[in-house]
Amino acid sequence: MKDLSELRLGIAGLGLIGGSLASALRGYFKEIYAWDIDPGVLEKGLDMGISFISCETAEEFANSCDVILLAVPLRYMEEISKTLRPLFKDSPPVAVMDVGSTKKEIGEIMISIWGSAYIGLHPMAGKEYSGIEQASRSLFQDARCAVVSGKETDPQVIEMALKIVSSIGSMPVFLDPEEHDSIVASVSHIPIMVASALAYVSGEQMESHPDLSCMVAGGFSDTTRLASGPAWLLADMWDTNSGNMGKLLDRLIDTLRTFREASPEVIEEMAEKARLSREKILSQRIQSD
Amino acid sequence: MKDLSELRLGIAGLGLIGGSLASALRGYFKEIYAWDIDPGVLEKGLDMGISFISCETAEEFANSCDVILLAVPLRYMEEISKTLRPLFKDSPPVAVMDVGSTKKEIGEIMISIWGSAYIGLHPMAGKEYSGIEQASRSLFQDARCAVVSGKETDPQVIEMALKIVSSIGSMPVFLDPEEHDSIVASVSHIPIMVASALAYVSGEQMESHPDLSCMVAGGFSDTTRLASGPAWLLADMWDTNSGNMGKLLDRLIDTLRTFREASPEVIEEMAEKARLSREKILSQRIQSD
Repeated sequence: MKDLSELRLGIAGLGLIGGSLASALRGYFKEIYAWDIDPGVLEKGLDMGISFISCETAEEFANSCDVILLAVPLRYMEEISKTLRPLFKDSPPVAVMDVGSTKKEIGEIMISIWGSAYIGLHPMAGKEYSGIEQASRSLFQDARCAVVSGKETDPQVIEMALKIVSSIGSMPVFLDPEEHDSIVASVSHIPIMVASALAYVSGEQMESHPDLSCMVAGGFSDTTRLASGPAWLLADMWDTNSGNMGKLLDRLIDTLRTFREASPEVIEEMAEKARLSREKILSQRIQSD
Repeated sequence: MKDLSELRLGIAGLGLIGGSLASALRGYFKEIYAWDIDPGVLEKGLDMGISFISCETAEEFANSCDVILLAVPLRYMEEISKTLRPLFKDSPPVAVMDVGSTKKEIGEIMISIWGSAYIGLHPMAGKEYSGIEQASRSLFQDARCAVVSGKETDPQVIEMALKIVSSIGSMPVFLDPEEHDSIVASVSHIPIMVASALAYVSGEQMESHPDLSCMVAGGFSDTTRLASGPAWLLADMWDTNSGNMGKLLDRLIDTLRTFREASPEVIEEMAEKARLSREKILSQRIQSD
């Protein structure tokens, strides 16, 4: 297998994740190309000092790169892949990776288009706000990155994915698509939905209680932090992972209803169990680092 | 009115809040006394370098102080007040303040015991973990602190409360008990309950998905941060503010059910509305600082 330094990388979509990948992968590839439907985003990236060569068209992008990283919203993955694939005339790219938040549905589509060159990545890192302005070289440092391959994935593509994961400072977690989508529903998608619902209700509440914002502190800010992400992200998660999310959402609604009917004593027991669960989940995260 | 420096302060309950108050108020009062049902906590506070005089009994505490700050869990406020009040033989203390999370129910009890000397305070500050070990001199710096007085409150007591709020570096927000409890249900109590429910469900989920903890990142950690507070806190909030909390909880459950049944398009509209609500709530907080 060729070394990364012999290959040209193409990043499609230069938002928080794509821009951070371009920053973090500087120096690892022969060249880095970037393409975005909004040319202003590419300009902004260059102004920020992120090092890449701008592509104006899909043709230019496809002709320039050996490895593709798709960092566009899930809803555009299929369309962009279908646009790009025919532009690689004789041979597909060496590897095609997406960094989307769900893997089962999208993975099947990607495999149908890209075959054994496709592998899914999902770096578990983000920020309060999205967009190229927030991109950071260190975003993925010490983060976990899911590596989602299938039976058909070329072993050399898996090897390349691991080199990229290591280059951005992340640690790989191997998951099959079903397990990936089930786990991220719990650690990421439902937390976003809950943060969003809480911010939604608080917004309504503020209409009748204008002093509410004066009393807001770190607790509210932390609990709703994920509600400041882009609205399309939650919509795309729901669109492609509603099975797993729905099951968890039902359990969450049931738990909140149990709280609703509970005595203070029962609330205390449940809150203690929840406290211990959080400690267990977070402590195992730290131990496994 | 006497200056704080002429008065002896007594703090009952030396946890995160009581300990931080003792630290932050150092040098403002003639002397600071502290009393806790757990003598180990007082020792720990002294070991940490927090400056106060330990009281072993309620009698010693009552005989030592002119101003009382009650920083015990809500469930002990009444009992402790009823123990202390008769120990002030001829005259009640100059001022009695509690720093509990709800004000209506407790306020009425406090007024029945302490009369015009009582005023409620509620500093909007906390930490991920509780207990004296977490106490910090700067906990209240730049925080808001609700000042909840009634018609019967002695104006000199209000003045003293404001001096204390200013001494700990906080800014006062005047609220009546009903408005206070309604607002904190939204910015604090329901966020704690939601964080707790989410940690609860994730704990169940981890039983069938042991890899879950490997994939946990900042989003889950932030959204559930409040679940690591003491379980009694949520129980006491529910015990004394279930009216306001229940109404909001119903709206939150309704919102989550709407999400459950929604198309990705509707999810996106709602998530965008939630995003804007959060920005509005937080931006007004910053502007009013």
